[in-house]
Amino acid sequence: MEFTNIISEIRAKKPLVHNITNMVVMNFNANVLLSLGASPVMAHAIEEIPDMVSLASSLVINIGTLDSRWISSMLLAIEEASKKNVPIIFDPVGSGATKFRTEMAKKIIAEGRPSIIRGNASEIMSLVDKSISTKGVDSSHSSSSAKDAALKISKDYSCTVVVSGEKDLVVTGDKISEISNGVPIMTKVTGVGCASTAIIGACAAINKDSHLAAVSGMCITGITGENASYTKTPGTFAVNFIDQLSLIDDEMLLKQAKVKDL
Amino acid sequence: MEFTNIISEIRAKKPLVHNITNMVVMNFNANVLLSLGASPVMAHAIEEIPDMVSLASSLVINIGTLDSRWISSMLLAIEEASKKNVPIIFDPVGSGATKFRTEMAKKIIAEGRPSIIRGNASEIMSLVDKSISTKGVDSSHSSSSAKDAALKISKDYSCTVVVSGEKDLVVTGDKISEISNGVPIMTKVTGVGCASTAIIGACAAINKDSHLAAVSGMCITGITGENASYTKTPGTFAVNFIDQLSLIDDEMLLKQAKVKDL
Amino acid sequence: MEFTNIISEIRAKKPLVHNITNMVVMNFNANVLLSLGASPVMAHAIEEIPDMVSLASSLVINIGTLDSRWISSMLLAIEEASKKNVPIIFDPVGSGATKFRTEMAKKIIAEGRPSIIRGNASEIMSLVDKSISTKGVDSSHSSSSAKDAALKISKDYSCTVVVSGEKDLVVTGDKISEISNGVPIMTKVTGVGCASTAIIGACAAINKDSHLAAVSGMCITGITGENASYTKTPGTFAVNFIDQLSLIDDEMLLKQAKVKDL
Repeated sequence: MEFTNIISEIRAKKPLVHNITNMVVMNFNANVLLSLGASPVMAHAIEEIPDMVSLASSLVINIGTLDSRWISSMLLAIEEASKKNVPIIFDPVGSGATKFRTEMAKKIIAEGRPSIIRGNASEIMSLVDKSISTKGVDSSHSSSSAKDAALKISKDYSCTVVVSGEKDLVVTGDKISEISNGVPIMTKVTGVGCASTAIIGACAAINKDSHLAAVSGMCITGITGENASYTKTPGTFAVNFIDQLSLIDDEMLLKQAKVKDL
Repeated sequence: MEFTNIISEIRAKKPLVHNITNMVVMNFNANVLLSLGASPVMAHAIEEIPDMVSLASSLVINIGTLDSRWISSMLLAIEEASKKNVPIIFDPVGSGATKFRTEMAKKIIAEGRPSIIRGNASEIMSLVDKSISTKGVDSSHSSSSAKDAALKISKDYSCTVVVSGEKDLVVTGDKISEISNGVPIMTKVTGVGCASTAIIGACAAINKDSHLAAVSGMCITGITGENASYTKTPGTFAVNFIDQLSLIDDEMLLKQAKVKDL
Repeated sequence: MEFTNIISEIRAKKPLVHNITNMVVMNFNANVLLSLGASPVMAHAIEEIPDMVSLASSLVINIGTLDSRWISSMLLAIEEASKKNVPIIFDPVGSGATKFRTEMAKKIIAEGRPSIIRGNASEIMSLVDKSISTKGVDSSHSSSSAKDAALKISKDYSCTVVVSGEKDLVVTGDKISEISNGVPIMTKVTGVGCASTAIIGACAAINKDSHLAAVSGMCITGITGENASYTKTPGTFAVNFIDQLSLIDDEMLLKQAKVKDL
């Protein structure tokens, strides 16, 4: 995998990543993006969406604590981003847990045509299979079982689909990359999944190849988790994770990435 | 006190705890629940409340940053939880500080009939005595002075009432348990009180005895605080608190709990 | 500079600081205020604004994640605070990034007549110059370039204006103080700027001299940053920052403050 010095480029260009995200992870994800070297902004007021999207190098949409008013802002933001060729990265948090989430996730995908969708297996499967049930925001399936769903969504909407899990899948059309980075304690900190979506957002702001941006983002997330895992407890791990994001560089990315093309 | 292996059960069953809580503590409380072993979800959209409550093993309602739209979601959630016998745990943050909070807290209790109510002394007293004034979200009374209020609320609404403070009171009808766990630095971290309510939520998801769930939750919170207090500064303490929640087990709970029946 | 034992007074009086602030920093800023010794409350429901403002010793308004409903609450809060002589501290986060933010910031200043306004250079300049563009919430100018804007705003609205940056400017009428405390890593943690506004809020709750409160708040922030900077990574730094706020005292403030009158 050729990562094209993506981390140095993020630090050099400090791209503005516009997030309309959930209230649980706003602080953590802003710190994740800052620590990596991007410039995060969280803004959801419908009145300022067109202006803010115009300034942004990528748009990250996350429905973790969606409600109808925020959905209106999200829909406007994706419309504006599409017009302005700002890449859209979408995190369908909790799709499959409630009908409302599943429907809103599908609507955002159908109307917004995101460049990249990142979810856990249940979330991705729920987008194509009504029988799938997500346990709140936690997956009830392994990432490999979501491969077919990812392939279908990628083809139907011409986008890259990331299924995160013990092994991550990145699917773009017929191209499938499998990533084996990461450590189990990452599932014990709220918002690490959402953080990986935000990190992909920073990568997509720099590199227009959505498959490469997604693979880069998932590798950066997983490697950072590995580098932070000298502790075994989640409170300290979360702090280490932010620390290690400020220390990761392109050499480490190249050296530690475990990517296999399937 | 017989704690019935409640911590191992939480870790084995990973109960989904549905929180409609305040924006200040969302991240901290999600991490608290994850670290203890439960599966937290934060969801407030009225459109998804019935679905989400159906998935949940307990419902935690916290009015720390209430507004009228969120109150509607809270009222629907408690109605759905009542129908489905999902235990409701209620935290009347700031009741007594403003008329709006006090009234909303009373309304939620009267309509929702929570299994367990947890507040500081001023908050609990304000629910039965109009003359009580809470200083924002901080208590202006000691927990013992709220004993009569707790007894009255417990009898009037057939619920368990927890008054947290230097010593915690857990009141169910005529039964009163006093808990002496905890350390003063816990009051220097935002959301530790709210976290104790969430922890009670995880316990109530596992054990339908509301008195036992409340005592367990308060002991887990206090013991975790003690175990985390090898630092004397609040930033590090908050990180330690999350760490120690992942390390506490039923043996420690049994050994360290300081519960006295009054 | 005579700091009048402001830190001991904050700890002795524990003033209630009412924040209507953004969702990104709510938790961090509440912990900042608690750690310093103040009593924070976050409350935005329009129904409780008059009651909450009545209890407060200062009001901190921050538009970091503004929307139209929150703006209504902010406008009511400043109206109530003006009536009751509660000092208003305003943080125009992202002014200059979008027309909506710039207009709302101007409206709050014109209607609310805050005692103190704190922003980065771009934010302050955007309040008087339409050509200025803020990069999301990050400044695109040095603080010295905002001196004229700060002077104009201070005179037009009879308030203190703080321009934060590598060197901070505090401007009240013709009086200009320059503060050289602080460390670069402070820009790598989300909400340190917002935290400085909240810290000024705690100082203004104790000392009615708005220039002194602003200088004290910026020095406390900068010195705390210096004292926390024995780490070079932002995750640990943020934890240290909260820790060091609990340790700073009036003697350290007096000894470490680098204030120059221009």
